[in-house]
Parts: sequence; C-alpha cells; structure tokens
Amino acid sequence: MTQLKAITISIGDELLSGKTIDSNNAFISQQLELLGLSVIKKLIIGDNKTDIIEALDWGFKEADILTLTGGLGPTHDDITKTVLCDYFEVGLLRDETLLENLKLRFEKRGFKFAPSNISQAEYPENANVLENSVGTAQGMHFEHQGKHLFVMPGVPGEMRAIISEQIVPILTEMTQASVDKIDIHSVGMPESTLYEICKPVFDTYDNIKVAYLPKLGMVTLRVSFQSEDRDKSTSDLTDIYNELQELMPRNIYGRDNDNLSSVVGGLLLSGKTSVTTAESCTGGLIASLITDIGGSSEYFNTGFVTYANETKMAMLQVKSETLEKHGAVSTETVSEMLSGALNNSKADYGIAVSGVAGPTGGTDDKPVGTVYIGVADKSNQVIKRFQFGTNRIMNKRMSANAGLNQLRLFILGELS
Amino acid sequence: MTQLKAITISIGDELLSGKTIDSNNAFISQQLELLGLSVIKKLIIGDNKTDIIEALDWGFKEADILTLTGGLGPTHDDITKTVLCDYFEVGLLRDETLLENLKLRFEKRGFKFAPSNISQAEYPENANVLENSVGTAQGMHFEHQGKHLFVMPGVPGEMRAIISEQIVPILTEMTQASVDKIDIHSVGMPESTLYEICKPVFDTYDNIKVAYLPKLGMVTLRVSFQSEDRDKSTSDLTDIYNELQELMPRNIYGRDNDNLSSVVGGLLLSGKTSVTTAESCTGGLIASLITDIGGSSEYFNTGFVTYANETKMAMLQVKSETLEKHGAVSTETVSEMLSGALNNSKADYGIAVSGVAGPTGGTDDKPVGTVYIGVADKSNQVIKRFQFGTNRIMNKRMSANAGLNQLRLFILGELS
Repeated sequence: MTQLKAITISIGDELLSGKTIDSNNAFISQQLELLGLSVIKKLIIGDNKTDIIEALDWGFKEADILTLTGGLGPTHDDITKTVLCDYFEVGLLRDETLLENLKLRFEKRGFKFAPSNISQAEYPENANVLENSVGTAQGMHFEHQGKHLFVMPGVPGEMRAIISEQIVPILTEMTQASVDKIDIHSVGMPESTLYEICKPVFDTYDNIKVAYLPKLGMVTLRVSFQSEDRDKSTSDLTDIYNELQELMPRNIYGRDNDNLSSVVGGLLLSGKTSVTTAESCTGGLIASLITDIGGSSEYFNTGFVTYANETKMAMLQVKSETLEKHGAVSTETVSEMLSGALNNSKADYGIAVSGVAGPTGGTDDKPVGTVYIGVADKSNQVIKRFQFGTNRIMNKRMSANAGLNQLRLFILGELS
Repeated sequence: MTQLKAITISIGDELLSGKTIDSNNAFISQQLELLGLSVIKKLIIGDNKTDIIEALDWGFKEADILTLTGGLGPTHDDITKTVLCDYFEVGLLRDETLLENLKLRFEKRGFKFAPSNISQAEYPENANVLENSVGTAQGMHFEHQGKHLFVMPGVPGEMRAIISEQIVPILTEMTQASVDKIDIHSVGMPESTLYEICKPVFDTYDNIKVAYLPKLGMVTLRVSFQSEDRDKSTSDLTDIYNELQELMPRNIYGRDNDNLSSVVGGLLLSGKTSVTTAESCTGGLIASLITDIGGSSEYFNTGFVTYANETKMAMLQVKSETLEKHGAVSTETVSEMLSGALNNSKADYGIAVSGVAGPTGGTDDKPVGTVYIGVADKSNQVIKRFQFGTNRIMNKRMSANAGLNQLRLFILGELS
C-alpha cells in the first residue's frame, strides 16, 4: 500500500506573530503518523481569504489528506466557513436542530445567546459535520476530487476531541499501515561521532528513518520504521537499541520516556540503595535533577551544596591542606568531598563535583570548563576530569549529566 | 515606508512527525515583528531536496525576507547546504580558518574530530557566514533578486544566538525601523489578572504593541513602539515600566536581561550580604538557580538539601517534636529550617522551602501543591503558605521562583 500524504494548515494571525506557539500542529501530526500517514508539510497562514484559498489549492494538489485548524469561532476574524463555501461553490445550510441545542446550551450556563452565535449552526452544504463534544464549533469533513479535508476549531481541547473522537476513526478505516518508533538517548558523545558509530548499524536495515536530536549536551536518536509487519519492526527496534547499547555502553543510557535521573533512580530503587550529592560548581543542580523524579525520597535524603571552601571544610571535612595544595578544583578535593558526604549521610552512593563553571575563574592549568566529577560507594571511588566549554549554564548542565551517568555506570559495574 | 514581508521556513522530519513542537518559529516571528516586519506565512517541510527547493522558490516569490531553520548539523539528514548550492548554482567553499578552529574545539574537549564535521566549515560561495557563538554550525545570509535569505541551525540556543547577535543587526539596518522595546518580567500573577491591570496603562499610548509571554509560572510583557522618535519611545518605555512597578511592586521584578536570580544577586551584592538555602521539596533547585549567575560565589557559600526528616534534624536541628506535631510541611518546620540554616552558615539571609511536590503525598489538609516558603535574616522570619498545582516539576519551579521573589521583597523591606 502506498503511504497517504498529509498536509496540516493552521489559520491564525496570533500564530504568525509568534504570540502563540502552535502546539496543535504537533498533536495533529502525532495522531496522523500513528495511523501511518506521512505528514509532508505544514503551513501556517493568516485569517484572510486569499491565503486560505491558495493554501487549499496547494494542499489538494500536494497531499491526499488535509487538515485545516482555526478560524471557526464566532468572532469577526474567523472567516473559514464562508471561504469554504466560496471555494467549493456551495451555499451555507442552517442546521435547526443544532441551533436549538446551542441555544439550550447557553441557557443552561446562564449566558445570553448572542446573534453572532447563529453562525455556529451553519455549514457549507457539502460538509459532513463532525460533532464537537466539548464546545460549540463543530468540525467538518469534505471529500473533494478523491481527497479529504478535515476542518477543526483552533481551541486545543476542542481540536483534540474532534481529532480523537471523529477524525481518527474515519482515517483508521481509510488506512491500514503501521509505523513503529523508538527514541534512544545518549550522553557525552558529540553528534558527529555518534553518527559515525551508528551509521553501519542503520545501514543494515531498510525502510528506516533516523533523526539526531541534540539537546543540552545530550543527543536523542529517533528511529522509525514504516512497515506492514508491526511485530518485525518492534523487534528490529529493540535489536537496534541493544546493538547500540553494546557498542556504546557508556553513552546510551535509556529509551523513550527515560531520562538520566529516572534511569539512575530505577537502579537505586531496585538495589534498595540511596545516593547523596556534594556539589560545588553544579550548585545543587544534581540534587534538583534527582528530585525531579516522583518518589525520589525513597533513595535521596541529603544533598550538600558546598560552594565555598569554608563550607567544604565545615560540611564535608575537606582538609585545608588539601585545598591549599591542590585547589578546590582537583581530584583530591573531590575525593574528600565524596568521603565527607558518605560519612555525613546514610547514603550508599555519593556523587561529588568541583569545577570552573565560568565565565571567569579559569587558569592555564584549569581553564573555564574544567570539572572533576567523582562517584563512590563505601569502598571505592572513581574520579574523572572533564573539559567542557565556556558557557556557565551549559557547563553546569553537562557536569550534572556526566555525574549522573558516571553513577549509572558505577552501579552497573561498568565504570573504568 | 512599506512594511517588509517575511516568511519563515523550518526544515525537519521531527517537526512534521509532531515529536518536537516548533518553538523556534515563535521566537523568530517575535523578533521579526519587533523590527516592524510582517510575518505573512510559515512553512514546515521535511529534510528533502525537492521540498526545500520548492519552498525557496515560493518564499522568494511571496516575501522580501526568508528565514530557513534546521538542517545544518553534521549528520546525514542535514542536507540544507548542498541544496542551497544547487539552488543558487554555486559551489561549496571550505573555510580553512574555521576548520582549524573547529578541530581545536574538539581537541580541547578531548573528542576525536570525525570527518563528518568537515562539512561544518564549508559554505556555498555566495553565502555571507553568520557567526554562531554557541555551536559549530554557522548561520548564512544570502542576497537573491533583491531579497534576503537567512539560514540557521535548528538547535534553539544556536538559532537564538545567531538571530540576536547577527540577523537582528542586519535587519535593523535594512529596515531602519526605529522599534524600541522592553521586556518587563512578572512573577506570581496570572496572565488574565496582569492583563486587566496593565490594559488601562497601555491604552494611554499610541503605536504600542504588547505581547504576553508566559513561561514556567512567570509572565513577561514584551512592549514595543514603532516610532520615528526613538528618544520619546525610550522614555515612554521607562515610564511604562515604572508605572507597572508601582502598580504591582510584589510582582514586577525586572526588565530585559534580568531574571529573578540576577535581581536577588544584585541586591545581595550591593548590600555586601549573602544568602543560604534550606530546601526540601525544591530539592536543590533554588541553590542551582542562585548559582546560575556568574560571580554568585560572592554571596552564596552554602546550601542544605534536606529531603528527609532525619536530614532536617541532623543538618538543620529541626526538632523531632516539631515534625511529629506539625509535619514536615508546616510553618513551624520551615521556621526551624530557617534558623538552622542561618546558624550553620555565615549567611545574612536564608530561604527555606517545604511542600508536597506531588504527584503523590497530598492530604485533605495539605493537598499536592501545598508549599510553605520562608525567608529570614538574623532577627526576622516571614513564612507564607502557597497552593500550586499538581505537576511536580512546575511545583518545584514555582516554589523556587516564589522563594526568590520573597527574598527580593524581604531585602527591599516590602514583604508583609
């Protein structure tokens, strides 16, 4: 079966000005792609007749399925329905039953029924009305030259209801294909290196699509198959994940809804163990990431934010000689931070970080971005030196990620 | 002067599939509209040559200014540059200086320079390279038939840097639009209430444009004038800021590049004072926000993350009777956390937080989202109860913001 092509069109001046982020569009795409359609383009236009008509012409030419969102409310800038009548060269029909229902609805809520609302019960003659279970602006379905146009209001809740309850069933009947996908999360590896390593793996599969999505110093690989055989594609995706995990055990840490904190949290929970943090340059960020996970109180009790040398000495018993001789940013200081944190909490594991976050404070030996990150349990410590960049916020974030990943590997016995 | 028309084009399969919400587009629109351009259409297309070329043809026909975002990374799905060479019928030039810089950058961070990165130093002959201060994929500027095309990578931080540092200055010169703008930041007030309070103020000015930009429980007002008289509009914007500050001193905390941490940091610095944190449900987030500011070591030495009751007792000397009688989420516990934090650090001020972040742990008395937030100096404490929502991450963020704002008002002597 050839894959049906879809185009989504959003109408609204507020979308063009950037005042509203068009989150509807992402929801519509997800729903269409889950049905096996390929969303090939998205267009956003203003509330004006010429642009809407041009968009319809273009959309019907390029795709099999069109969605049109926005421009169905009672206010003056919502002109979609009259434009659709012009486009299809049909008249407007008033649905008297719908009108009565609308009036009842207003009455029930104690609102006056303003005449501008009458238009909510009027539809182009050739429209198949799609019921809106949560609002007054109904959706519409048009068939035109063997293609399909679905029209919805732009209010997110109403759009979602019409898509889920009306449009998905219609499209499900129309299509049969299935798409399967996986998100594979990596940390600590530049996009280009990841690409070099993954390419040979992906090259052995057909019908595969891969996107590299970098964010905050991590890269997510989004891998998808378009396939008739859902079982095969699901097992292929798991094979790919396992293969990449084996190639890069230090870097591939999870899939789909996993994040570093949830993966580390899962390991701690399953071992009935706990962690404490001793943070200098990350300033509490690691503790905050750990406690982003619901239920983290099961494995996290105590965090030390020891920004000043004095505090490192007072809270973690770091020796003044160590600080004098090696500096706060050193293996030796981080080692004592780890011991102090474990001694002063009941945790099984510790993460400690000290570095030069920037933008100032760098030296020739330890330029901005130099960070020592250590993990430990009661009997072992592993401390590594990292060199990040010059952006303070990114340095904090990359240090926190590296620390969490280091603990993950330490618990798994894979840190060397 | 006629208004220049702009079209934004985003490239990326991940945008079509709906996995990524295209927030870049909103940012670009806002920046262009502030310069007085009219964004007339937005198009989102996949990583494929035909669609990119058609989009360029269409864009150059319909608009004066085009932006093209995405498709500039080193991986195989990023084809924008070769397509641009084909489109403009020019060759690819390698910039050897840039290549050396790239190699150095990789070396410094201890990564291997993969051959796929060489393309990051190659550009179509007719491109004017726009420096990317935060990443390796540079932007480009093309002039074509009297029109302008700006090409940027899709990674949000890099796109923002290139827009702000490179493209806005070019367009400012091009449009000579004298647009003057201010960002006014508010915390702790819903958008609709803010709107009701601000509307009468804005209604007294002509040629004014206002956007309400909500983010993480705060709202930024972006106010701009399109005016020939720059001096007048600058002074008008300052008047507006002062007027709103007077109307809402508890909520309006800063302008333009200010954020809550930098404003609080400025107050601490100018008083030569310091702050410590005692965090339960925020789990280190407040300390992390404070240390996001360069130079924060001047006023921040020590943070306590006391997630467990045991830790509250051990680190902050919270009494077990207090915890038993009033619970960890209470005015009494937060009061003792504040005293303990001040006693165990040399700080002048303290912030302490205890609450139910969720998603579980709520009771009838203290449902999810109940948070006690206190600030103190050596002689006074002010503790307030807040009721936030049910989302854990948002509850942490809103609690942290409220805590920082409470300290701001406390230092200013405006907290009651």
